[in-house]
Amino acid sequence: MHTEFLPKPYQNNVPEVVIRRLPQYLRSLTHLLESGAEVISSHHLGQILEVTPAQIRKDLSYFGRFGKQGRGYNIRHLLDRLRNILGLEQTWDVAVVGVGRLGRAIINYQGFQPEGFRVVCAFDSEQKVVGEVAGGLIIQDITKIKEVLSDLSVKIAIVSVPASGAQDVIDRLVEAGIRSILSYAPIPAHVPLGVQIRSVDPVLQLQSMTYYLND
Amino acid sequence: MHTEFLPKPYQNNVPEVVIRRLPQYLRSLTHLLESGAEVISSHHLGQILEVTPAQIRKDLSYFGRFGKQGRGYNIRHLLDRLRNILGLEQTWDVAVVGVGRLGRAIINYQGFQPEGFRVVCAFDSEQKVVGEVAGGLIIQDITKIKEVLSDLSVKIAIVSVPASGAQDVIDRLVEAGIRSILSYAPIPAHVPLGVQIRSVDPVLQLQSMTYYLND
Repeated sequence: MHTEFLPKPYQNNVPEVVIRRLPQYLRSLTHLLESGAEVISSHHLGQILEVTPAQIRKDLSYFGRFGKQGRGYNIRHLLDRLRNILGLEQTWDVAVVGVGRLGRAIINYQGFQPEGFRVVCAFDSEQKVVGEVAGGLIIQDITKIKEVLSDLSVKIAIVSVPASGAQDVIDRLVEAGIRSILSYAPIPAHVPLGVQIRSVDPVLQLQSMTYYLND
Repeated sequence: MHTEFLPKPYQNNVPEVVIRRLPQYLRSLTHLLESGAEVISSHHLGQILEVTPAQIRKDLSYFGRFGKQGRGYNIRHLLDRLRNILGLEQTWDVAVVGVGRLGRAIINYQGFQPEGFRVVCAFDSEQKVVGEVAGGLIIQDITKIKEVLSDLSVKIAIVSVPASGAQDVIDRLVEAGIRSILSYAPIPAHVPLGVQIRSVDPVLQLQSMTYYLND
């Protein structure tokens, strides 16, 4: 059998931890390609990513065959496949909820667009903020969120509201058809099955380092 | 032998993945305590954290004995021990480098202080920003970083500069005695052995969710 990759049905049981590593592969391979490399061994890629070569081969094996024994991976080909697997051959529209200092930094962040994400709408509950412009977008009233998001068919949202209002915002987003949420609120938020949520939490990151300072 | 916890020398070989989970335990247990709970089983804690009860028992076993067979953990006691293990019985001073929109959001973030972190100084390389005040701090010239940080004995820094300047800033921080770095720059940064670095990278988080939208 000579299959370059497996059809989607075979991909359903890929562990989430593998999916979470793929964007890191993408990031590192992009840097390698930009620095002029064309081929990389799983050994070298493993060193860069701080995982074992066996782990890399196992992760990729969920999606079919990559590279030829002893020849390493063609970086450009692997990048194309990773973008295809992760659904990054298109640009995804993103909604931002909460336009305080953090929300404004997110809306104006230049790093999303080159990586496949475009902030297309922004919401806040503060009446004095609604109607203002941030990053070229008119900040809309959060009560309009369901109507606006279904009109735009947005599936991804970033939540940058304070902890106290976050679960309520997340519930509204799910109700409005959002299926992927990136939350900056420091709470363990709940979403129904079928909705993905990731958390950006600088406090947890800092607290995982003080252990090493504590001597 | 009746030891409540193991002395420090026994803790040297704790896997980093375990250390990274402890702040999440801390966060969830704090919420539980605030909601009035006093005792929790590893089974219930596992459900909340989405790990197995066996994993929780194994993680905690690196640090001695917690709880009594069949009785669950005393939440207050476990929280005290986790704070002690992670070095969070003190407030840690933090330097911020890069005072653009994101840096200002970080400096003004109200969530650090209650969790044991206090931003005490801020640096930027832009001369038009140096001397301005952000969150009550005078923004200082990045060329003064070594002198200021050693005067203040700061060990932790947050890097919120663009990707292109990030590795240079990180090198300077390490030279200035910083041992823990939280980087918002989307690059795989390098630090010498003995320095910890964590990355906050919303793009990687978003890219790990589009897989599930891609059907």
